[in-house]
Amino acid sequence: MNVTVSRKAHFNAAHKLYNSDWTDARNAVVFGKCSNPNFHGHNYELIVSVKGSVHPETGFVMDMKELKKMINAEIIDAFDHKNLNEEVPEFKKLNPTAENIAVVIWNKLRLKIAINLALTITLYETPRNFVTYTGE
Amino acid sequence: MNVTVSRKAHFNAAHKLYNSDWTDARNAVVFGKCSNPNFHGHNYELIVSVKGSVHPETGFVMDMKELKKMINAEIIDAFDHKNLNEEVPEFKKLNPTAENIAVVIWNKLRLKIAINLALTITLYETPRNFVTYTGE
Amino acid sequence: MNVTVSRKAHFNAAHKLYNSDWTDARNAVVFGKCSNPNFHGHNYELIVSVKGSVHPETGFVMDMKELKKMINAEIIDAFDHKNLNEEVPEFKKLNPTAENIAVVIWNKLRLKIAINLALTITLYETPRNFVTYTGE
Amino acid sequence: MNVTVSRKAHFNAAHKLYNSDWTDARNAVVFGKCSNPNFHGHNYELIVSVKGSVHPETGFVMDMKELKKMINAEIIDAFDHKNLNEEVPEFKKLNPTAENIAVVIWNKLRLKIAINLALTITLYETPRNFVTYTGE
Amino acid sequence: MNVTVSRKAHFNAAHKLYNSDWTDARNAVVFGKCSNPNFHGHNYELIVSVKGSVHPETGFVMDMKELKKMINAEIIDAFDHKNLNEEVPEFKKLNPTAENIAVVIWNKLRLKIAINLALTITLYETPRNFVTYTGE
Amino acid sequence: MNVTVSRKAHFNAAHKLYNSDWTDARNAVVFGKCSNPNFHGHNYELIVSVKGSVHPETGFVMDMKELKKMINAEIIDAFDHKNLNEEVPEFKKLNPTAENIAVVIWNKLRLKIAINLALTITLYETPRNFVTYTGE
Repeated sequence: MNVTVSRKAHFNAAHKLYNSDWTDARNAVVFGKCSNPNFHGHNYELIVSVKGSVHPETGFVMDMKELKKMINAEIIDAFDHKNLNEEVPEFKKLNPTAENIAVVIWNKLRLKIAINLALTITLYETPRNFVTYTGE
Repeated sequence: MNVTVSRKAHFNAAHKLYNSDWTDARNAVVFGKCSNPNFHGHNYELIVSVKGSVHPETGFVMDMKELKKMINAEIIDAFDHKNLNEEVPEFKKLNPTAENIAVVIWNKLRLKIAINLALTITLYETPRNFVTYTGE
Repeated sequence: MNVTVSRKAHFNAAHKLYNSDWTDARNAVVFGKCSNPNFHGHNYELIVSVKGSVHPETGFVMDMKELKKMINAEIIDAFDHKNLNEEVPEFKKLNPTAENIAVVIWNKLRLKIAINLALTITLYETPRNFVTYTGE
Repeated sequence: MNVTVSRKAHFNAAHKLYNSDWTDARNAVVFGKCSNPNFHGHNYELIVSVKGSVHPETGFVMDMKELKKMINAEIIDAFDHKNLNEEVPEFKKLNPTAENIAVVIWNKLRLKIAINLALTITLYETPRNFVTYTGE
Repeated sequence: MNVTVSRKAHFNAAHKLYNSDWTDARNAVVFGKCSNPNFHGHNYELIVSVKGSVHPETGFVMDMKELKKMINAEIIDAFDHKNLNEEVPEFKKLNPTAENIAVVIWNKLRLKIAINLALTITLYETPRNFVTYTGE
Repeated sequence: MNVTVSRKAHFNAAHKLYNSDWTDARNAVVFGKCSNPNFHGHNYELIVSVKGSVHPETGFVMDMKELKKMINAEIIDAFDHKNLNEEVPEFKKLNPTAENIAVVIWNKLRLKIAINLALTITLYETPRNFVTYTGE
């Protein structure tokens, strides 16, 4: 029996969409108001999903208390109330689109979650825009 | 890296469930109050999901501003504040169940979205009933 | 101790915005696409709120099972899967705007709810538009 | 054309996380406050998803009215306003984690839903914790 | 300038509706399945609202970090993962209806919140049932 | 008959909590991580509520299409994808707490909405924190 368990978390951050290899003018053409050099921000809603077999003694795929702690230590402490472009090392060069943020979160958590468990990251940038990454 | 990006949209429409090859009596037996000949209606919530590789320069699978425009031009302008049975050509003969509406939306958007991107349509007919179509 | 108890309910209906004393042209100017003569529709979310003292023996302002039955009998059975303009007598002449629907619901429930209880109706026409009526 | 249709339902229940082969002390260490011997409880939100081909005459994968009745008869009547550990036979020995509840619901509905239809169960234990089971 | 600031919180608990002055038979007649002697439970969603003038130096009615701490210390620690009837002293004799729980929460927080601030408690017992108490 | 009509809108912005009359150290003590000098951000959800009598010819308190346009022109165009501290003149000196943002929005819309209509602003800074201002 393989079950997927999912845990929601939340962080607030500032960002701008910006490719540092481009001129500001080209950034403005491609990213529009999302490239505002003074930044804007979001309430990011994060769903971390872990799939694996149900342990016969606990009835758990993974202890959700442990998953919550791991999300807090790896992601919330690093991203919450931060400026993603300025303060989060992964985005010094990488454009913090929802796609790239989801990939960065997946890469960080993949190192911490038992290798026999499949990992999926869903990230809502706004209530109307969200992305999903499974590591493929 | 393959990421799925999703965009929510919304339209309001009237419809009735009706198979024009059947008698009204049989429609009433099969579809119950959903076959009311005077129509009823819904706030349809639409989620369009597009899966593909993340472009290394933009960090986008696809520009969400373009996806939003495409959804508005192809779906919202055609369906919003309309009577699906009476005014939307695709449903002149086809019963506008949530299943069929999702397939029609998929077919319309499939023509517009780059062929290397996978497309999934999720459609909420009510907060408690929804359908998903991936083109399989 | 005065507490307000609230119960949510749901109905789907077709309608058009239409003043029968006006020409179709004027209806179209004032109500835009909402005046489509072929109708459109909504998932209406209804919140019925009743305020009064907490009964010392039951701990209830009012038995929510009774309130649910009353909403079903008076409102859901009358409005759900109906065309409001064509099939609901209250709207034969009255324009079924969210405002007017809320007032009609208030008037219908006011007759059934004990007179010592204050009544408020909140009606969501879409997730972004809603109205509230307290009988003032 | 294969479409997935989903229906949401709701039940309220008490439970505790408890492995009857362990001492109370070990249960407390592993399950923390979830093992409170006096029980706690949840509003469980259930999503039943059924995937299959769209019937050309009805436009349905499956009549949602039938699916709703089946969920009520098999799941809601058995679980709603119950103590899962004490009153639901499947959990006399089995720990009622979200994972195990989802598997039990899947097993019960699998017997009732036509075998050509794929079945997925999603169960929200809280707004922040949920699980998914597809029968794999 | 008087502004109302609101903070949401969450607790899970078991309860039964029960008047200890009545026979079990009468409890069953009045409270139905909510009187199940083995308990059932809910995810309670709590909204604490505080109204007062905006401090000119901070721009706060009240520091939300302090309000969050107060809600955790007074309410969540006392109610979360508890059996309200068995383990929360206020309900040893008082029936834990949503109405009474809201009044108890109001009384506990009223002692802690500055007296110049008005206090309102909103409590969702389920997504469809909720109550509001302002201390009147 | 007085009815309240409400319209939801949405904007994304960066901000920091900061009193420019204080030292950075004092800002950090009072506002904690919300005073991060590099900014953070939110998806602000705005509800504009207008109360007045229902016009007998239209069935409207106010045309919601007009209200939507007014919110877009006065608020969304001014605040969306902006840095509130740096780019919105009202917050050059005023700390952009949720309380102060709600008051600023109320003041801006009060000038545009007919004086016989009462105005209330509700602003969600996060899904768990929100404020309400009625002009008192």
